[in-house]
Formats: sequence, structure tokens, C-alpha cells
Amino acid sequence: MSAPTVDTAAVTETVTGLATAAKAASRSLATLSTAQKNTVLVAAAEAIEAASATIVAANDADIAAAEAAGTEASLLDRLRLTPERVTGIAAGLRQVAALADPVGEVLAGRTLANGLTLRQVRVPLGVVGIVYEARPNVTVDAFGIGFKSGNAVLLRGSGSAAESNAALVAVLREVLAAHGVNPDAVALLPSHDRASVTALIQARGLVDVVIPRGGAGLINAVVANATVPTIETGTGNCHVYVHSSADLDMAETVVINAKTRRPSVCNTAETVLIDEAIADVALPRLTEALRASGVTIHGDEEGMEPADEKDWSEEYLSLDIAVRRVAGLDDAIEHIGRYGTGHTEAIITADLAAANEFTRRVDAAAVIVNASTAFTDGEQFGFGAEIGISTQKLHARGPMGLPELTSTKWIVWGDGQIRPV
Amino acid sequence: MSAPTVDTAAVTETVTGLATAAKAASRSLATLSTAQKNTVLVAAAEAIEAASATIVAANDADIAAAEAAGTEASLLDRLRLTPERVTGIAAGLRQVAALADPVGEVLAGRTLANGLTLRQVRVPLGVVGIVYEARPNVTVDAFGIGFKSGNAVLLRGSGSAAESNAALVAVLREVLAAHGVNPDAVALLPSHDRASVTALIQARGLVDVVIPRGGAGLINAVVANATVPTIETGTGNCHVYVHSSADLDMAETVVINAKTRRPSVCNTAETVLIDEAIADVALPRLTEALRASGVTIHGDEEGMEPADEKDWSEEYLSLDIAVRRVAGLDDAIEHIGRYGTGHTEAIITADLAAANEFTRRVDAAAVIVNASTAFTDGEQFGFGAEIGISTQKLHARGPMGLPELTSTKWIVWGDGQIRPV
Repeated sequence: MSAPTVDTAAVTETVTGLATAAKAASRSLATLSTAQKNTVLVAAAEAIEAASATIVAANDADIAAAEAAGTEASLLDRLRLTPERVTGIAAGLRQVAALADPVGEVLAGRTLANGLTLRQVRVPLGVVGIVYEARPNVTVDAFGIGFKSGNAVLLRGSGSAAESNAALVAVLREVLAAHGVNPDAVALLPSHDRASVTALIQARGLVDVVIPRGGAGLINAVVANATVPTIETGTGNCHVYVHSSADLDMAETVVINAKTRRPSVCNTAETVLIDEAIADVALPRLTEALRASGVTIHGDEEGMEPADEKDWSEEYLSLDIAVRRVAGLDDAIEHIGRYGTGHTEAIITADLAAANEFTRRVDAAAVIVNASTAFTDGEQFGFGAEIGISTQKLHARGPMGLPELTSTKWIVWGDGQIRPV
Repeated sequence: MSAPTVDTAAVTETVTGLATAAKAASRSLATLSTAQKNTVLVAAAEAIEAASATIVAANDADIAAAEAAGTEASLLDRLRLTPERVTGIAAGLRQVAALADPVGEVLAGRTLANGLTLRQVRVPLGVVGIVYEARPNVTVDAFGIGFKSGNAVLLRGSGSAAESNAALVAVLREVLAAHGVNPDAVALLPSHDRASVTALIQARGLVDVVIPRGGAGLINAVVANATVPTIETGTGNCHVYVHSSADLDMAETVVINAKTRRPSVCNTAETVLIDEAIADVALPRLTEALRASGVTIHGDEEGMEPADEKDWSEEYLSLDIAVRRVAGLDDAIEHIGRYGTGHTEAIITADLAAANEFTRRVDAAAVIVNASTAFTDGEQFGFGAEIGISTQKLHARGPMGLPELTSTKWIVWGDGQIRPV
């Protein structure tokens, strides 16, 4: 499969056109009632199930092209849609329909001395751009969560899922139109080159926020070139610190789960820090258990794969882990401060003061005591749906559900008040 | 006064050094108790009062340089510090000390089925950069609100206030050191060229957020070049729409107040939209009243200064206003959607449906019914202190007080929970 020639100007024009249409659509979305939105979401679930054969056929074309290009098995699996997976996608839409609508929630309010009444009300962000990779289910999930929160969504999926995404978005747009909703509330951007990403992240005034979902390379490129506000997601160089007071049975169970449950996701553990005071026992025990689970150990100790700066600072996203001795709590917190990405950091300890100190001082979206890093996830946190995990401190931090796709508006009512000089 | 030669590399190194030191200081700030912070703020107020003569002398040097450079009177007034103004600055610190501490507030929490307990806790952003213009009181205000919310602040003030700002920051740093707090919690960046702004907005990993306060030019330059998250503030092309049902006495009072109270601030009205249905009466009446208050009228009607696209799209920030007839509510909302900057939009109406429609559909930080646009202000809204008025939708929208200078952290406690596959 040869890459098509890139006509950057044409791609930019296409993206700007779709963004302009999405902006117009977003104005009407903001005033839809919750009942109207839920009706559309349920209808979309039904339409996706009804179009299952067409969607799977489109996906077959993507899979065939990916196979011809020599794509590895794990990526093929992420790309693949089956009738069961299509049913799962539809179920996701029904779940979002059942969630509370964040739009219109009154967050604060007061009456001023002069009689003015103030209300701070949740409103949609407007147009949300999402840049993501292989999995086509994200296409529908992002539409669902974006639509429920009153936003138009511009989807820039993976080129490898182009046919699948096109089939899914065609169904969604048809459902919108059939329900009298502007179908430009969801649009798929060209995905064959980076020009569409650049156009999206620079569509200031049309796009309200861009959420890049993917590896560190994508996120850095987006942040470096964006003029639209962005929410960084997902890069997780997560640590488990085994404190001197740790129950080693618990430490072993948690470390194995945090590393091996799903090594390729952002909340997987990438480094284990072991307190010097218990290292003689804990280090051989944990490394042995990890090796028995198929994990390769990187570090400075004998018998490990030699580690360099990259081992401490980057995610493996594979059955690899770095292991290091630390002098104590301060040393662990310092290591995490230097190498962590602010995603999820865990401590295993029986000591209350250590647990408090760790949670107070570690600067991350989620700080966990005596549990697996794998819990940092919108569904686990009870949000019902998640658009990503923010690793930045602005707007949202950690798993982002429906409320994180909203902004606020102050509504002020008076009867002629003016402000004295 | 000749501009010093710019050594960009040296400026960048200086800024990076100060940002690195601020990052280190921010770690200790995050764990200060409210009592400790309040003690420092009150001590800083006293120290500023005690150093009043030194501060005013430093300001005299700035004023002399500005006069020599031919600076206009209104800017000189913004730059000037008197003993009374210094007392006012100190009073501002005492006010911030009296406000509730946002850090540590628990915003949400739950216990999961597996026994994990979750708490979402407010934490400081970390290092906040503020880019601002002439007024030296902002230097202390920004420190006060930043410090109370647990943040280190990097201040990039105006070159014209360099001596005043240096004198103020020297006092603040001394007070911090005397109270055992890392003085790098506040630092003044070089201000003689734009290189320090560029270095600040690209100090990713060191600076958590940059808040540009100033004109559209500064804000656009910051947004275009920043890799650090930014919060846009202050550009306010605000409208007052006089609906067909408006009480014209109220309309006149509000429009005059919204335009003339302080023409140079962001919440001043820049355009009046008059409903066609009442224009024959309302238009001459309002324009006459505005002219009687010394306001120049721009527009397409006879006797007005001819208006072009700039008159509708840009702020005057002076005793000028644009006036236009609109066909009705839809037309007014469309005009505002096209030209507004999302700051403050007002309607004068006696009609409930029109008021509801306007507040629901207009996309701005503040939407006001029957009152002056001048109320969009942190102090008026009851925040007690304000760091700026956000015109973007991400993180904060409208006046930003102490809570808007915080992020959140999820703290999860368990007793060995792992996540099933």
C-alpha cells in the first residue's frame, strides 16, 4: 500500500470546512434537551447493530490492507471488528444514554447585595477534536460521550481504520439527520497524513479543544504545534514503590497485576522501586515472580538487563519493567518526581505516615495506596464512560467523563443594575 | 532610553533557571498549612507598608524613565505608585489571607464495590507564569493569590515597571525567607524584551500554566507559541443588545455605565445592537445620551463615524462605541456569535422568553440580563480576589479566583486490591 501524495492545502481546506460545519452544528447541540439526546443515542445503537454486516465488511477491507502491509498481530487485533464487537460498541452508546446529562447543571450561584442573581451553569465545550489510533470503537465512543455532553466531535482516527471509521460515521450521521439534528455534529477527518492533525490543532476559533490520545510522540507533536487548547492524555510512566513496611504478599500480587494485566495500556506499571531496608528479601522475590510471569527485568543489579536513562524515563508498554532500590520514602518520591509522567503512582505500605506523606507529596493524577495502578480508569472510577486520562493539570486531571467535556457560563439576571465608579 | 541589546540565549537561561527554582519551591508550597500561608501573607502586607518609601522611590525612577520616553498620561497613571496605593496593595494581601484556602478541599469521593476509597482533592497547579502590563500592583496581587493557592509564581511584568516590580518582589522574597519558605516561590523575569515571554511559555515540564494578561496582540502571540498550557484572559468585545421590549430608561442607564465607567477595561461595552422594531426611538435617544457623555459613535447610520469590519470585531477600549440596528433576537445573537470574544454579552429586555433564549444561546463567559457588562469581575462576583478573566472554555471561564489556580488529584486507598483481567 503506497501512501497517497499529500496535498496539504487541500487537506487543510477540508478540515477547515468540516470544523466550520461542526461549529455551526455545535450551536444547535447546546440547546438539545437530555431526552432528545438520549433518543438519538439509543437510535444510533440500533442503527449500528442493524448495519453490523456493512461495518464488519468495511473493517475486513482495513484488516486486509493492514495484513498486506505486514502489521503485527496485536495491532491487527485492536483494529478488528467482529459482530460481537459491533454489539459491544452499540451497548456503549446505550450506557452513555443512561448516564446523567452534565449540561445545565448549576455549579454555583449567589445573589449580590444589589439584587443581581448569578448562576454558574455547565455548558458544552462546543467543538471537540479527538486524535486517536487503531481501535475503531473509539470512533463511536467519542461520538457518544461528546454528543451526550452537547459537543460536536471531529474525529481524526488512524489511517489503518479508515474504512471502518467511515462506515461507522456514515451510520451516525444518518441517524442524526433522521432525528432532525445537524449531521455535522460528527465528522471524520482525512487520516492518510499528519496534515489533517496540524489543520485540526490550528483551527483556532472553530475548535474549542483537541484531545490527543496516543503515544508520547503524537502528544508532544500536538502540544508543540497546537494553537487550540489541548488536553494531554495517557502517557503513563507509572511506578509502584514498595515501602520498607510493605506486606510482601500484597506487593507481589499488586506488582504482577499492575504490570501484566494489560502491558500495553497507560496505567500499567513500568518501574518498581524497592526500599533498601527490605531489598535483600523483596528484590529477589519480586523479580522472580515477575520473571515467572514472563516479564523481563531491567535495572542496575546483577542478572538484570542493563538499564539506562531511557529505562527510567520512558514507558515500555510491554512485558518489561525497570527495578531500582531506593534509600527510602524521600528517595522514592524524588525518583517519581524526576521520571514520572503524572499519571498514576502507587505505594505499598503498612505505615500510615508513609501513606499520607506519599499521597500528599507525589504530584500525579492518581496516587494509590495498596492497590494496583490498573484502577486509574473512568469505568473503574464510576464515571460510566471515559474519553481519556488527562495527565495535565489544566481543566481535567485523571480519567475524563462527561463533565470533563463541558465548560461553564455565568448567567446574571438583574433589573437595571449599574456598577458605581 | 535605548533598548538594551537582546541576548536571547542568556535570557532563556535566566528564565529556565528561575523556573527550575520555582518548580522546586512549588513542591514545598503544596504542603504548607493554611495558617502558615496566612502568616506569610500578613507579614508580607506589613513588610510592604514598612518598605513604602523604598518602593515609591523605585517607582519614581520608573515614572521618570517613562516620562522621558514620552509615555502618555493614562499609562503613567497606571504605572504610578503613591504611599496610598502601596497601602492599598498591602490591604489586598490581607484580604487574600482572609479568604478560604482552596487547597485540600475534597470535591468528590466514593467507595468502590471492591473496597477502594477514592477522594478527588484540590491541589495547587504548581508553577504559574503571569505575563502582564504596566500596573505594578498586579505583581503583589498575583503573588498573593498564587501563594494562597499554593503555587509558585513567575512574574513577567512590564519593562516600564521594572524598578517598581523589583522593589516589590525583593520585599516578598525577604518575607518568605524570614518565614522559612523557599523564596523562589516568587520571581521576577527579565522584562526588557519578548525573549523572556517566549522562554516562559515554552518551559514545558517546569511551568504548569501561563496566564497572559493584556491586549489581543500579547494573547495571540502567547497562544501561538506556547507549549505550556495557557489561559487566555481579558479580550472583551462586549455587546449590549437592546431588545424590542426594552425599558429605554434602563437601556440608557446601562449602556452609559457599560461604556463610560472605565472605557479601558475588558468588560466595557464596545457595541450596542438596537432592535429594528424600536430603532426609530431608541437609536437617536441612546446615541444622544452617549454623545452627551463624550462618546464617539461609529456605525452605518447618518451622522456616525463610518464603521468597517474592525469596528465590529475589535475593542476600542476608549470613549468610542459601535452602534448597529439588528432585525431581532436571532440577528443579535448571530452578530455576537460572529464578532464577540466570549467575554460578556448583555441583553436589555422586558420579555422573559427573550431573556431565556439569549442566555441559553449566547456563548460567552458571562451572559447578563438587564444589567451593566461592568459586573463581570472577580470582586463583584464575590471571589474576593481575581487573577484575570478567562475568555477560553478550558479549565476556567470568566473571573478566576483562588479555586481556578488549583488542579485536582485522585487519592485512592486500598488494602491490596488488584483489577481482574
